[in-house]
Amino acid sequence: MTALTDREAATGVPDGFVAVQSSAGFTRHNGGFFVHQELPIVASRIAPEHLNPLRIAHGGYLAAMADSAFGVIFKRQFNLEVPPVTVSLTVDYLGAVREGEWLEAHVEILKFGRSFASASCLLKVGERLVLRASGTFTVWKGEIPRQG
Amino acid sequence: MTALTDREAATGVPDGFVAVQSSAGFTRHNGGFFVHQELPIVASRIAPEHLNPLRIAHGGYLAAMADSAFGVIFKRQFNLEVPPVTVSLTVDYLGAVREGEWLEAHVEILKFGRSFASASCLLKVGERLVLRASGTFTVWKGEIPRQG
Amino acid sequence: MTALTDREAATGVPDGFVAVQSSAGFTRHNGGFFVHQELPIVASRIAPEHLNPLRIAHGGYLAAMADSAFGVIFKRQFNLEVPPVTVSLTVDYLGAVREGEWLEAHVEILKFGRSFASASCLLKVGERLVLRASGTFTVWKGEIPRQG
Amino acid sequence: MTALTDREAATGVPDGFVAVQSSAGFTRHNGGFFVHQELPIVASRIAPEHLNPLRIAHGGYLAAMADSAFGVIFKRQFNLEVPPVTVSLTVDYLGAVREGEWLEAHVEILKFGRSFASASCLLKVGERLVLRASGTFTVWKGEIPRQG
Repeated sequence: MTALTDREAATGVPDGFVAVQSSAGFTRHNGGFFVHQELPIVASRIAPEHLNPLRIAHGGYLAAMADSAFGVIFKRQFNLEVPPVTVSLTVDYLGAVREGEWLEAHVEILKFGRSFASASCLLKVGERLVLRASGTFTVWKGEIPRQG
Repeated sequence: MTALTDREAATGVPDGFVAVQSSAGFTRHNGGFFVHQELPIVASRIAPEHLNPLRIAHGGYLAAMADSAFGVIFKRQFNLEVPPVTVSLTVDYLGAVREGEWLEAHVEILKFGRSFASASCLLKVGERLVLRASGTFTVWKGEIPRQG
Repeated sequence: MTALTDREAATGVPDGFVAVQSSAGFTRHNGGFFVHQELPIVASRIAPEHLNPLRIAHGGYLAAMADSAFGVIFKRQFNLEVPPVTVSLTVDYLGAVREGEWLEAHVEILKFGRSFASASCLLKVGERLVLRASGTFTVWKGEIPRQG
Repeated sequence: MTALTDREAATGVPDGFVAVQSSAGFTRHNGGFFVHQELPIVASRIAPEHLNPLRIAHGGYLAAMADSAFGVIFKRQFNLEVPPVTVSLTVDYLGAVREGEWLEAHVEILKFGRSFASASCLLKVGERLVLRASGTFTVWKGEIPRQG
Protein backbone atom coordinates (compact mmCIF):
# COMPACT_ATOMS: atom_id res chain seq x y z
CA MET A 1 0.00 0.00 0.00
CA THR A 2 1.50 3.28 -1.08
CA ALA A 3 0.44 6.67 0.17
CA LEU A 4 -1.31 8.93 -2.33
CA THR A 5 0.45 12.10 -3.40
CA ASP A 6 -1.49 15.35 -3.05
CA ARG A 7 -2.01 15.48 -6.81
CA GLU A 8 -3.35 11.95 -6.94
CA ALA A 9 -5.63 12.55 -3.96
CA ALA A 10 -7.01 15.68 -5.62
CA THR A 11 -7.42 14.39 -9.19
CA GLY A 12 -7.64 10.61 -8.95
CA VAL A 13 -4.80 10.43 -11.48
CA PRO A 14 -1.61 8.72 -10.28
CA ASP A 15 1.71 10.48 -10.67
CA GLY A 16 3.35 10.08 -14.04
CA PHE A 17 0.09 9.99 -16.04
CA VAL A 18 -1.26 12.77 -18.27
CA ALA A 19 -4.51 12.96 -20.24
CA VAL A 20 -4.32 11.81 -23.87
CA GLN A 21 -5.42 14.67 -26.12
CA SER A 22 -8.38 13.27 -27.96
CA SER A 23 -10.27 15.09 -30.61
CA ALA A 24 -14.03 14.80 -30.60
CA GLY A 25 -15.44 11.35 -31.20
CA PHE A 26 -15.74 7.97 -29.53
CA THR A 27 -12.70 8.27 -27.27
CA ARG A 28 -13.62 11.68 -25.84
CA HIS A 29 -17.30 10.67 -25.52
CA ASN A 30 -16.21 7.76 -23.34
CA GLY A 31 -14.07 9.83 -21.01
CA GLY A 32 -10.70 9.69 -22.74
CA PHE A 33 -7.57 7.99 -21.50
CA PHE A 34 -4.42 8.79 -19.59
CA VAL A 35 -0.94 7.78 -20.69
CA HIS A 36 2.20 7.36 -18.61
CA GLN A 37 4.82 9.90 -19.60
CA GLU A 38 7.60 7.32 -19.86
CA LEU A 39 6.22 3.80 -19.65
CA PRO A 40 4.01 2.16 -22.34
CA ILE A 41 0.92 2.30 -20.11
CA VAL A 42 -2.51 3.74 -20.96
CA ALA A 43 -5.07 4.05 -18.16
CA SER A 44 -8.59 5.11 -17.23
CA ARG A 45 -10.76 5.49 -14.15
CA ILE A 46 -13.87 3.29 -14.52
CA ALA A 47 -17.03 5.42 -14.45
CA PRO A 48 -20.76 4.57 -14.47
CA GLU A 49 -20.94 5.02 -18.25
CA HIS A 50 -18.42 2.16 -18.71
CA LEU A 51 -20.52 -0.49 -16.95
CA ASN A 52 -22.76 -3.34 -18.11
CA PRO A 53 -25.97 -4.55 -16.41
CA LEU A 54 -23.87 -6.63 -13.97
CA ARG A 55 -22.26 -3.34 -12.84
CA ILE A 56 -18.81 -4.35 -14.02
CA ALA A 57 -16.94 -2.73 -16.90
CA HIS A 58 -18.60 -3.64 -20.23
CA GLY A 59 -16.58 -6.07 -22.34
CA GLY A 60 -16.95 -3.69 -25.25
CA TYR A 61 -15.45 -0.82 -23.27
CA LEU A 62 -12.50 -3.01 -22.29
CA ALA A 63 -11.93 -4.09 -25.90
CA ALA A 64 -12.12 -0.45 -26.95
CA MET A 65 -9.63 0.51 -24.26
CA ALA A 66 -7.18 -2.18 -25.40
CA ASP A 67 -7.53 -1.02 -29.02
CA SER A 68 -6.99 2.61 -28.02
CA ALA A 69 -4.01 1.75 -25.83
CA PHE A 70 -2.28 0.07 -28.78
CA GLY A 71 -2.94 3.15 -30.91
CA VAL A 72 -1.67 5.64 -28.33
CA ILE A 73 1.58 3.74 -27.67
CA PHE A 74 2.37 2.99 -31.36
CA LYS A 75 1.71 6.64 -32.27
CA ARG A 76 4.02 7.97 -29.56
CA GLN A 77 6.78 5.43 -29.98
CA PHE A 78 7.05 5.72 -33.78
CA ASN A 79 6.04 9.39 -34.11
CA LEU A 80 3.03 8.60 -36.29
CA GLU A 81 0.60 11.31 -37.33
CA VAL A 82 -2.37 9.05 -36.55
CA PRO A 83 -2.55 5.70 -34.75
CA PRO A 84 -2.07 2.64 -36.98
CA VAL A 85 -5.16 0.93 -38.39
CA THR A 86 -6.23 -2.18 -36.50
CA VAL A 87 -6.42 -5.21 -38.80
CA SER A 88 -7.23 -7.84 -36.18
CA LEU A 89 -7.77 -7.71 -32.41
CA THR A 90 -8.17 -10.56 -29.92
CA VAL A 91 -9.17 -10.01 -26.30
CA ASP A 92 -9.36 -12.63 -23.53
CA TYR A 93 -11.38 -11.62 -20.47
CA LEU A 94 -9.75 -12.73 -17.21
CA GLY A 95 -11.54 -10.80 -14.47
CA ALA A 96 -14.07 -8.11 -13.62
CA VAL A 97 -13.39 -4.38 -13.14
CA ARG A 98 -15.59 -2.25 -10.90
CA GLU A 99 -16.63 1.39 -10.87
CA GLY A 100 -13.98 3.68 -9.47
CA GLU A 101 -11.07 1.35 -10.18
CA TRP A 102 -7.95 2.65 -11.95
CA LEU A 103 -7.39 0.37 -14.93
CA GLU A 104 -4.01 0.21 -16.67
CA ALA A 105 -3.19 -1.26 -20.09
CA HIS A 106 0.46 -2.34 -20.21
CA VAL A 107 1.42 -2.48 -23.88
CA GLU A 108 4.27 -4.50 -25.39
CA ILE A 109 5.16 -3.86 -29.01
CA LEU A 110 6.32 -7.10 -30.62
CA LYS A 111 6.95 -6.04 -34.23
CA PHE A 112 6.86 -2.87 -36.32
CA GLY A 113 7.55 -4.03 -39.86
CA ARG A 114 7.07 -2.59 -43.31
CA SER A 115 3.68 -4.14 -43.91
CA PHE A 116 2.34 -4.79 -40.44
CA ALA A 117 2.86 -4.30 -36.74
CA SER A 118 2.02 -6.54 -33.80
CA ALA A 119 1.55 -5.91 -30.10
CA SER A 120 0.06 -7.42 -26.98
CA CYS A 121 -1.16 -5.90 -23.75
CA LEU A 122 -2.34 -6.80 -20.27
CA LEU A 123 -5.06 -4.82 -18.51
CA LYS A 124 -4.54 -4.70 -14.76
CA VAL A 125 -6.02 -3.10 -11.64
CA GLY A 126 -2.95 -2.94 -9.42
CA GLU A 127 -1.51 -6.46 -9.75
CA ARG A 128 -4.88 -8.03 -10.56
CA LEU A 129 -5.08 -9.25 -14.19
CA VAL A 130 -8.30 -8.29 -15.97
CA LEU A 131 -7.77 -8.79 -19.70
CA ARG A 132 -5.17 -9.97 -22.22
CA ALA A 133 -5.22 -8.50 -25.72
CA SER A 134 -3.17 -8.71 -28.88
CA GLY A 135 -3.51 -7.20 -32.30
CA THR A 136 -2.22 -6.82 -35.82
CA PHE A 137 -1.95 -3.30 -37.20
CA THR A 138 -0.91 -1.49 -40.35
CA VAL A 139 0.20 2.11 -40.79
CA TRP A 140 -2.48 4.32 -42.34
CA LYS A 141 -1.44 5.45 -45.84
CA GLY A 142 -4.54 7.41 -46.84
CA GLU A 143 -5.38 11.06 -46.40
CA ILE A 144 -5.80 12.39 -42.86
CA PRO A 145 -8.86 14.62 -42.43
CA ARG A 146 -8.34 17.98 -40.75
CA GLN A 147 -10.11 18.28 -37.48
CA GLY A 148 -12.36 21.26 -38.24
CA MET B 1 -32.39 0.68 -54.24
CA THR B 2 -35.53 0.22 -52.20
CA ALA B 3 -37.93 2.98 -51.29
CA LEU B 4 -38.04 3.98 -47.64
CA THR B 5 -41.22 3.34 -45.73
CA ASP B 6 -42.78 6.32 -43.95
CA ARG B 7 -41.56 5.00 -40.60
CA GLU B 8 -38.00 4.55 -41.82
CA ALA B 9 -37.97 7.99 -43.41
CA ALA B 10 -39.21 9.53 -40.14
CA THR B 11 -37.00 7.62 -37.70
CA GLY B 12 -33.99 6.39 -39.65
CA VAL B 13 -34.79 2.88 -38.38
CA PRO B 14 -35.58 0.27 -41.06
CA ASP B 15 -38.74 -1.80 -40.76
CA GLY B 16 -38.46 -4.84 -38.55
CA PHE B 17 -36.02 -3.28 -36.06
CA VAL B 18 -36.83 -2.16 -32.52
CA ALA B 19 -34.64 -0.49 -29.90
CA VAL B 20 -32.88 -2.83 -27.45
CA GLN B 21 -33.90 -1.89 -23.91
CA SER B 22 -30.64 -0.99 -22.25
CA SER B 23 -30.26 -0.05 -18.67
CA ALA B 24 -27.91 2.77 -17.80
CA GLY B 25 -24.26 2.20 -18.59
CA PHE B 26 -21.92 1.84 -21.52
CA THR B 27 -24.46 0.67 -24.06
CA ARG B 28 -26.97 3.44 -23.40
CA HIS B 29 -24.19 6.04 -23.18
CA ASN B 30 -23.12 5.05 -26.69
CA GLY B 31 -26.57 5.33 -28.22
CA GLY B 32 -27.90 1.84 -27.73
CA PHE B 33 -28.68 -0.71 -30.41
CA PHE B 34 -31.59 -1.95 -32.47
CA VAL B 35 -32.48 -5.60 -32.94
CA HIS B 36 -34.48 -7.22 -35.72
CA GLN B 37 -37.69 -8.72 -34.38
CA GLU B 38 -37.18 -12.05 -36.13
CA LEU B 39 -33.70 -12.31 -37.60
CA PRO B 40 -30.47 -12.53 -35.53
CA ILE B 41 -29.41 -9.00 -36.51
CA VAL B 42 -28.37 -6.14 -34.22
CA ALA B 43 -27.90 -2.68 -35.74
CA SER B 44 -26.97 0.93 -35.08
CA ARG B 45 -26.85 4.26 -36.92
CA ILE B 46 -23.27 5.60 -36.85
CA ALA B 47 -23.16 8.97 -35.06
CA PRO B 48 -20.37 11.54 -34.46
CA GLU B 49 -19.63 10.06 -31.01
CA HIS B 50 -18.71 6.72 -32.65
CA LEU B 51 -15.91 8.12 -34.84
CA ASN B 52 -12.11 8.15 -34.61
CA PRO B 53 -9.78 10.97 -35.78
CA LEU B 54 -10.00 9.63 -39.37
CA ARG B 55 -13.76 10.25 -39.17
CA ILE B 56 -14.62 6.61 -39.59
CA ALA B 57 -16.19 4.43 -36.89
CA HIS B 58 -13.68 3.77 -34.09
CA GLY B 59 -12.37 0.20 -33.99
CA GLY B 60 -13.25 0.07 -30.32
CA TYR B 61 -16.86 1.02 -31.02
CA LEU B 62 -17.08 -1.71 -33.66
CA ALA B 63 -15.62 -4.31 -31.29
CA ALA B 64 -18.08 -3.19 -28.61
CA MET B 65 -20.93 -3.46 -31.08
CA ALA B 66 -19.93 -7.01 -32.04
CA ASP B 67 -19.68 -7.98 -28.37
CA SER B 68 -23.09 -6.46 -27.62
CA ALA B 69 -24.67 -8.10 -30.65
CA PHE B 70 -23.57 -11.53 -29.44
CA GLY B 71 -25.04 -10.77 -26.01
CA VAL B 72 -28.38 -9.53 -27.34
CA ILE B 73 -28.91 -12.51 -29.64
CA PHE B 74 -27.80 -15.18 -27.12
CA LYS B 75 -30.04 -13.62 -24.44
CA ARG B 76 -33.09 -13.60 -26.71
CA GLN B 77 -32.56 -16.99 -28.28
CA PHE B 78 -31.94 -18.89 -25.02
CA ASN B 79 -34.16 -16.78 -22.73
CA LEU B 80 -31.26 -15.76 -20.48
CA GLU B 81 -31.72 -13.25 -17.68
CA VAL B 82 -28.47 -11.49 -18.63
CA PRO B 83 -26.24 -11.86 -21.69
CA PRO B 84 -23.54 -14.54 -21.39
CA VAL B 85 -20.08 -13.48 -20.20
CA THR B 86 -17.53 -13.02 -22.98
CA VAL B 87 -14.46 -15.19 -22.44
CA SER B 88 -12.63 -14.38 -25.67
CA LEU B 89 -13.42 -12.12 -28.63
CA THR B 90 -11.62 -11.79 -31.97
CA VAL B 91 -12.44 -9.07 -34.50
CA ASP B 92 -11.02 -8.66 -38.01
CA TYR B 93 -11.46 -5.22 -39.56
CA LEU B 94 -12.37 -5.40 -43.25
CA GLY B 95 -13.60 -1.91 -44.18
CA ALA B 96 -14.50 1.56 -42.94
CA VAL B 97 -17.92 2.78 -41.77
CA ARG B 98 -18.93 6.42 -42.05
CA GLU B 99 -21.18 8.72 -40.08
CA GLY B 100 -24.85 8.26 -40.86
CA GLU B 101 -24.49 4.70 -42.14
CA TRP B 102 -26.81 1.96 -40.86
CA LEU B 103 -24.57 -0.83 -39.60
CA GLU B 104 -25.88 -4.36 -39.10
CA ALA B 105 -24.30 -7.22 -37.13
CA HIS B 106 -25.50 -10.56 -38.51
CA VAL B 107 -24.95 -13.12 -35.75
CA GLU B 108 -24.60 -16.88 -36.21
CA ILE B 109 -24.64 -19.04 -33.08
CA LEU B 110 -22.34 -22.03 -33.57
CA LYS B 111 -22.57 -23.80 -30.22
CA PHE B 112 -24.44 -23.44 -26.92
CA GLY B 113 -22.99 -26.14 -24.69
CA ARG B 114 -22.92 -26.81 -20.96
CA SER B 115 -19.62 -25.10 -20.31
CA PHE B 116 -19.29 -22.65 -23.17
CA ALA B 117 -20.96 -21.10 -26.18
CA SER B 118 -19.50 -19.95 -29.49
CA ALA B 119 -20.71 -17.57 -32.18
CA SER B 120 -19.51 -15.54 -35.12
CA CYS B 121 -20.86 -12.44 -36.80
CA LEU B 122 -20.40 -10.23 -39.83
CA LEU B 123 -20.87 -6.46 -39.65
CA LYS B 124 -22.26 -5.02 -42.89
CA VAL B 125 -23.50 -1.74 -44.36
CA GLY B 126 -25.93 -3.02 -46.96
CA GLU B 127 -23.91 -5.72 -48.74
CA ARG B 128 -20.54 -4.13 -47.90
CA LEU B 129 -18.54 -6.18 -45.38
CA VAL B 130 -16.99 -4.12 -42.57
CA LEU B 131 -15.92 -6.52 -39.81
CA ARG B 132 -15.82 -10.22 -38.94
CA ALA B 133 -16.00 -11.25 -35.30
CA SER B 134 -16.17 -14.44 -33.28
CA GLY B 135 -16.26 -15.19 -29.61
CA THR B 136 -16.36 -17.71 -26.81
CA PHE B 137 -18.90 -17.15 -24.05
CA THR B 138 -20.09 -18.72 -20.81
CA VAL B 139 -23.40 -18.33 -19.04
CA TRP B 140 -23.21 -16.08 -15.96
CA LYS B 141 -23.75 -18.09 -12.78
CA GLY B 142 -23.28 -15.35 -10.18
CA GLU B 143 -25.76 -13.00 -8.62
CA ILE B 144 -27.48 -10.45 -10.82
CA PRO B 145 -27.62 -6.95 -9.33
CA ARG B 146 -31.00 -5.19 -9.29
CA GLN B 147 -31.10 -2.15 -11.48
CA GLY B 148 -32.01 0.47 -8.85
CA MET C 1 -27.73 -41.41 -46.06
CA THR C 2 -26.31 -41.53 -49.56
CA ALA C 3 -24.90 -44.60 -51.24
CA LEU C 4 -21.16 -44.64 -51.86
CA THR C 5 -19.97 -44.57 -55.43
CA ASP C 6 -17.59 -47.35 -56.48
CA ARG C 7 -14.69 -44.88 -56.44
CA GLU C 8 -15.48 -43.66 -52.93
CA ALA C 9 -15.91 -47.21 -51.64
CA ALA C 10 -12.53 -48.17 -53.12
CA THR C 11 -10.50 -45.08 -52.12
CA GLY C 12 -12.30 -43.49 -49.17
CA VAL C 13 -12.33 -40.22 -51.11
CA PRO C 14 -15.76 -38.78 -51.92
CA ASP C 15 -16.58 -37.82 -55.47
CA GLY C 16 -15.42 -34.37 -56.52
CA PHE C 17 -12.26 -34.38 -54.38
CA VAL C 18 -8.70 -34.72 -55.67
CA ALA C 19 -5.41 -34.88 -53.76
CA VAL C 20 -3.59 -31.55 -53.29
CA GLN C 21 -0.13 -31.81 -54.79
CA SER C 22 2.18 -31.18 -51.88
CA SER C 23 5.90 -30.99 -52.09
CA ALA C 24 7.92 -32.62 -49.34
CA GLY C 25 7.50 -31.12 -45.89
CA PHE C 26 4.97 -30.80 -43.12
CA THR C 27 1.86 -31.19 -45.24
CA ARG C 28 3.01 -34.35 -47.01
CA HIS C 29 4.43 -35.79 -43.78
CA ASN C 30 0.96 -35.46 -42.24
CA GLY C 31 -0.86 -37.20 -45.05
CA GLY C 32 -1.69 -34.30 -47.32
CA PHE C 33 -5.12 -32.91 -48.11
CA PHE C 34 -7.85 -33.25 -50.69
CA VAL C 35 -9.57 -30.33 -52.38
CA HIS C 36 -12.97 -30.20 -54.04
CA GLN C 37 -12.63 -29.51 -57.75
CA GLU C 38 -15.26 -26.77 -57.75
CA LEU C 39 -16.24 -25.80 -54.21
CA PRO C 40 -13.91 -24.04 -51.72
CA ILE C 41 -13.57 -27.18 -49.57
CA VAL C 42 -10.38 -28.87 -48.37
CA ALA C 43 -10.63 -32.26 -46.69
CA SER C 44 -8.76 -35.09 -45.02
CA ARG C 45 -9.40 -38.57 -43.63
CA ILE C 46 -8.42 -38.64 -39.92
CA ALA C 47 -5.66 -41.21 -39.36
CA PRO C 48 -3.89 -42.52 -36.22
CA GLU C 49 -1.02 -40.04 -36.70
CA HIS C 50 -3.48 -37.12 -36.32
CA LEU C 51 -4.70 -38.08 -32.83
CA ASN C 52 -3.95 -36.86 -29.31
CA PRO C 53 -3.84 -39.00 -26.13
CA LEU C 54 -7.65 -38.77 -25.85
CA ARG C 55 -7.81 -40.49 -29.27
CA ILE C 56 -9.46 -37.54 -30.95
CA ALA C 57 -7.83 -35.35 -33.59
CA HIS C 58 -5.06 -33.22 -32.03
CA GLY C 59 -5.92 -29.51 -31.77
CA GLY C 60 -2.64 -28.72 -33.46
CA TYR C 61 -3.50 -30.91 -36.44
CA LEU C 62 -6.87 -29.18 -36.76
CA ALA C 63 -5.26 -25.72 -36.59
CA ALA C 64 -2.75 -26.83 -39.21
CA MET C 65 -5.55 -28.14 -41.42
CA ALA C 66 -7.43 -24.82 -41.17
CA ASP C 67 -4.26 -22.90 -42.02
CA SER C 68 -3.55 -25.18 -44.99
CA ALA C 69 -7.14 -24.98 -46.22
CA PHE C 70 -6.92 -21.18 -46.36
CA GLY C 71 -3.67 -21.44 -48.31
CA VAL C 72 -4.99 -23.98 -50.82
CA ILE C 73 -8.17 -22.02 -51.57
CA PHE C 74 -6.49 -18.58 -51.80
CA LYS C 75 -3.80 -20.02 -54.10
CA ARG C 76 -6.34 -21.59 -56.45
CA GLN C 77 -8.83 -18.72 -56.47
CA PHE C 78 -6.28 -15.96 -57.13
CA ASN C 79 -3.77 -17.99 -59.16
CA LEU C 80 -0.94 -17.40 -56.70
CA GLU C 81 2.42 -19.12 -57.13
CA VAL C 82 2.56 -19.93 -53.40
CA PRO C 83 -0.13 -19.69 -50.71
CA PRO C 84 -0.32 -16.31 -48.93
CA VAL C 85 1.61 -15.87 -45.69
CA THR C 86 -0.50 -16.22 -42.54
CA VAL C 87 -0.25 -13.12 -40.36
CA SER C 88 -2.78 -14.13 -37.70
CA LEU C 89 -4.95 -17.21 -37.18
CA THR C 90 -7.73 -17.82 -34.64
CA VAL C 91 -9.34 -21.22 -34.14
CA ASP C 92 -12.31 -22.06 -31.89
CA TYR C 93 -12.74 -25.75 -31.07
CA LEU C 94 -16.38 -26.84 -31.13
CA GLY C 95 -16.33 -30.63 -31.14
CA ALA C 96 -14.19 -33.77 -31.36
CA VAL C 97 -13.17 -35.65 -34.53
CA ARG C 98 -12.43 -39.36 -34.45
CA GLU C 99 -10.16 -41.69 -36.42
CA GLY C 100 -11.56 -42.61 -39.81
CA GLU C 101 -13.85 -39.58 -40.11
CA TRP C 102 -13.84 -37.48 -43.28
CA LEU C 103 -13.22 -33.90 -42.19
CA GLU C 104 -14.05 -30.97 -44.47
CA ALA C 105 -12.89 -27.35 -44.17
CA HIS C 106 -15.40 -25.04 -45.86
CA VAL C 107 -13.54 -21.81 -46.65
CA GLU C 108 -15.13 -18.39 -47.20
CA ILE C 109 -12.87 -15.61 -48.51
CA LEU C 110 -13.97 -12.29 -47.01
CA LYS C 111 -11.41 -9.86 -48.46
CA PHE C 112 -8.47 -9.93 -50.86
CA GLY C 113 -7.03 -6.43 -50.68
CA ARG C 114 -3.75 -4.81 -51.67
CA SER C 115 -2.14 -5.24 -48.27
CA PHE C 116 -4.25 -7.88 -46.53
CA ALA C 117 -6.56 -10.78 -47.16
CA SER C 118 -9.09 -12.24 -44.74
CA ALA C 119 -11.03 -15.48 -44.65
CA SER C 120 -12.97 -17.72 -42.32
CA CYS C 121 -13.75 -21.42 -42.38
CA LEU C 122 -15.83 -24.07 -40.70
CA LEU C 123 -14.54 -27.62 -40.20
CA LYS C 124 -17.30 -30.21 -40.38
CA VAL C 125 -17.82 -33.98 -40.36
CA GLY C 126 -21.01 -34.25 -42.38
CA GLU C 127 -23.24 -31.61 -40.80
CA ARG C 128 -21.49 -31.79 -37.41
CA LEU C 129 -19.49 -28.62 -36.64
CA VAL C 130 -16.00 -29.27 -35.28
CA LEU C 131 -14.02 -26.04 -35.53
CA ARG C 132 -14.35 -22.40 -36.59
CA ALA C 133 -11.30 -20.56 -37.86
CA SER C 134 -10.44 -17.19 -39.31
CA GLY C 135 -7.24 -15.57 -40.43
CA THR C 136 -5.43 -12.56 -41.81
CA PHE C 137 -3.01 -13.15 -44.67
CA THR C 138 -0.62 -11.24 -46.89
CA VAL C 139 0.72 -12.18 -50.32
CA TRP C 140 4.32 -13.40 -50.27
CA LYS C 141 6.62 -10.90 -52.03
CA GLY C 142 9.97 -12.59 -51.45
CA GLU C 143 11.85 -15.10 -53.54
CA ILE C 144 10.35 -18.55 -53.99
CA PRO C 145 12.83 -21.42 -53.54
CA ARG C 146 12.97 -24.08 -56.26
CA GLN C 147 11.85 -27.47 -55.07
CA GLY C 148 14.96 -29.57 -55.72
CA MET D 1 27.84 -16.74 -28.20
CA THR D 2 28.01 -19.44 -25.58
CA ALA D 3 30.04 -22.60 -25.84
CA LEU D 4 28.13 -25.86 -26.29
CA THR D 5 28.35 -28.44 -23.56
CA ASP D 6 29.42 -31.93 -24.62
CA ARG D 7 25.86 -33.17 -24.22
CA GLU D 8 24.44 -30.40 -26.38
CA ALA D 9 27.10 -30.91 -29.03
CA ALA D 10 26.30 -34.62 -29.13
CA THR D 11 22.51 -34.47 -29.05
CA GLY D 12 21.52 -31.02 -30.30
CA VAL D 13 19.50 -30.60 -27.12
CA PRO D 14 20.52 -27.70 -24.84
CA ASP D 15 21.18 -28.38 -21.17
CA GLY D 16 18.11 -28.36 -18.97
CA PHE D 17 15.77 -29.82 -21.60
CA VAL D 18 14.35 -33.35 -21.65
CA ALA D 19 12.11 -35.09 -24.19
CA VAL D 20 8.37 -34.93 -23.48
CA GLN D 21 7.02 -38.47 -23.25
CA SER D 22 4.45 -38.62 -25.99
CA SER D 23 2.27 -41.57 -26.69
CA ALA D 24 1.68 -42.50 -30.31
CA GLY D 25 -0.18 -39.94 -32.39
CA PHE D 26 0.27 -36.51 -33.92
CA THR D 27 2.90 -35.24 -31.50
CA ARG D 28 5.19 -38.26 -31.80
CA HIS D 29 4.65 -38.42 -35.57
CA ASN D 30 5.94 -34.86 -35.82
CA GLY D 31 9.08 -35.46 -33.80
CA GLY D 32 7.88 -34.71 -30.29
CA PHE D 33 8.94 -31.84 -28.07
CA PHE D 34 11.42 -31.07 -25.34
CA VAL D 35 10.55 -29.34 -22.09
CA HIS D 36 12.81 -27.42 -19.74
CA GLN D 37 13.06 -29.17 -16.38
CA GLU D 38 12.38 -25.99 -14.39
CA LEU D 39 11.26 -23.16 -16.64
CA PRO D 40 7.91 -23.09 -18.52
CA ILE D 41 9.61 -23.60 -21.90
CA VAL D 42 8.81 -26.22 -24.55
CA ALA D 43 11.17 -26.59 -27.50
CA SER D 44 11.90 -28.43 -30.74
CA ARG D 45 14.60 -28.67 -33.38
CA ILE D 46 13.13 -27.72 -36.78
CA ALA D 47 13.43 -30.66 -39.21
CA PRO D 48 12.62 -31.08 -42.93
CA GLU D 49 9.19 -32.53 -42.11
CA HIS D 50 8.21 -29.25 -40.41
CA LEU D 51 8.73 -27.03 -43.46
CA ASN D 52 6.42 -25.45 -46.04
CA PRO D 53 7.19 -24.93 -49.76
CA LEU D 54 9.11 -21.72 -48.88
CA ARG D 55 11.43 -23.94 -46.77
CA ILE D 56 10.49 -22.21 -43.54
CA ALA D 57 8.55 -23.84 -40.70
CA HIS D 58 4.92 -24.41 -41.74
CA GLY D 59 2.44 -22.11 -39.99
CA GLY D 60 0.41 -25.14 -39.06
CA TYR D 61 3.39 -26.76 -37.37
CA LEU D 62 4.03 -23.58 -35.38
CA ALA D 63 0.38 -23.36 -34.31
CA ALA D 64 0.51 -27.02 -33.29
CA MET D 65 3.70 -26.41 -31.32
CA ALA D 66 2.10 -23.47 -29.46
CA ASP D 67 -0.97 -25.57 -28.67
CA SER D 68 1.19 -28.47 -27.44
CA ALA D 69 3.38 -26.15 -25.37
CA PHE D 70 0.33 -24.85 -23.52
CA GLY D 71 -0.79 -28.41 -22.85
CA VAL D 72 2.59 -29.61 -21.59
CA ILE D 73 3.06 -26.67 -19.20
CA PHE D 74 -0.52 -26.70 -17.82
CA LYS D 75 -0.32 -30.48 -17.27
CA ARG D 76 2.97 -30.25 -15.37
CA GLN D 77 2.15 -27.16 -13.35
CA PHE D 78 -1.27 -28.33 -12.16
CA ASN D 79 -0.57 -32.08 -12.06
CA LEU D 80 -3.29 -32.90 -14.60
CA GLU D 81 -3.73 -36.41 -15.94
CA VAL D 82 -4.14 -35.10 -19.48
CA PRO D 83 -3.53 -31.61 -20.94
CA PRO D 84 -6.53 -29.26 -20.78
CA VAL D 85 -8.82 -29.06 -23.80
CA THR D 86 -8.19 -26.06 -26.06
CA VAL D 87 -11.33 -23.96 -26.50
CA SER D 88 -9.81 -21.13 -28.54
CA LEU D 89 -6.32 -20.44 -29.87
CA THR D 90 -4.94 -17.31 -31.56
CA VAL D 91 -1.50 -17.18 -33.18
CA ASP D 92 0.24 -14.14 -34.67
CA TYR D 93 3.15 -14.90 -36.99
CA LEU D 94 6.08 -12.53 -36.50
CA GLY D 95 9.03 -14.13 -38.29
CA ALA D 96 10.33 -17.17 -40.15
CA VAL D 97 12.07 -20.22 -38.67
CA ARG D 98 14.52 -22.28 -40.67
CA GLU D 99 15.56 -25.92 -40.71
CA GLY D 100 17.97 -26.82 -37.94
CA GLU D 101 16.96 -23.95 -35.65
CA TRP D 102 16.16 -24.60 -31.98
CA LEU D 103 12.72 -23.12 -31.37
CA GLU D 104 11.51 -22.35 -27.86
CA ALA D 105 7.94 -21.64 -26.70
CA HIS D 106 7.99 -19.55 -23.52
CA VAL D 107 4.62 -20.07 -21.84
CA GLU D 108 2.99 -17.71 -19.33
CA ILE D 109 -0.10 -18.96 -17.51
CA LEU D 110 -2.49 -16.04 -16.90
CA LYS D 111 -5.43 -17.75 -15.22
CA PHE D 112 -6.42 -21.22 -14.01
CA GLY D 113 -10.01 -20.84 -12.86
CA ARG D 114 -12.85 -23.21 -12.13
CA SER D 115 -14.31 -23.07 -15.60
CA PHE D 116 -11.53 -21.64 -17.78
CA ALA D 117 -7.80 -21.30 -18.01
CA SER D 118 -5.87 -18.77 -20.07
CA ALA D 119 -2.27 -18.53 -21.19
CA SER D 120 -0.03 -16.81 -23.70
CA CYS D 121 3.31 -17.73 -25.18
CA LEU D 122 6.13 -16.38 -27.30
CA LEU D 123 8.04 -18.59 -29.74
CA LYS D 124 11.67 -17.56 -30.09
CA VAL D 125 14.88 -18.67 -31.75
CA GLY D 126 17.45 -17.26 -29.33
CA GLU D 127 16.21 -13.68 -28.83
CA ARG D 128 14.47 -13.53 -32.21
CA LEU D 129 10.68 -13.43 -31.89
CA VAL D 130 8.87 -15.79 -34.26
CA LEU D 131 5.27 -16.14 -33.04
CA ARG D 132 2.92 -14.90 -30.34
CA ALA D 133 0.07 -17.16 -29.22
CA SER D 134 -2.66 -17.15 -26.62
CA GLY D 135 -5.44 -19.52 -25.77
CA THR D 136 -8.45 -20.37 -23.66
CA PHE D 137 -8.61 -23.84 -22.17
CA THR D 138 -10.86 -26.00 -20.02
CA VAL D 139 -9.97 -29.03 -17.94
CA TRP D 140 -11.08 -32.33 -19.51
CA LYS D 141 -13.85 -33.94 -17.45
CA GLY D 142 -14.60 -36.97 -19.62
CA GLU D 143 -13.14 -40.45 -19.56
CA ILE D 144 -9.47 -40.89 -20.40
CA PRO D 145 -8.79 -43.78 -22.78
CA ARG D 146 -6.06 -46.24 -21.80
CA GLN D 147 -3.13 -46.20 -24.15
CA GLY D 148 -3.19 -49.82 -25.29
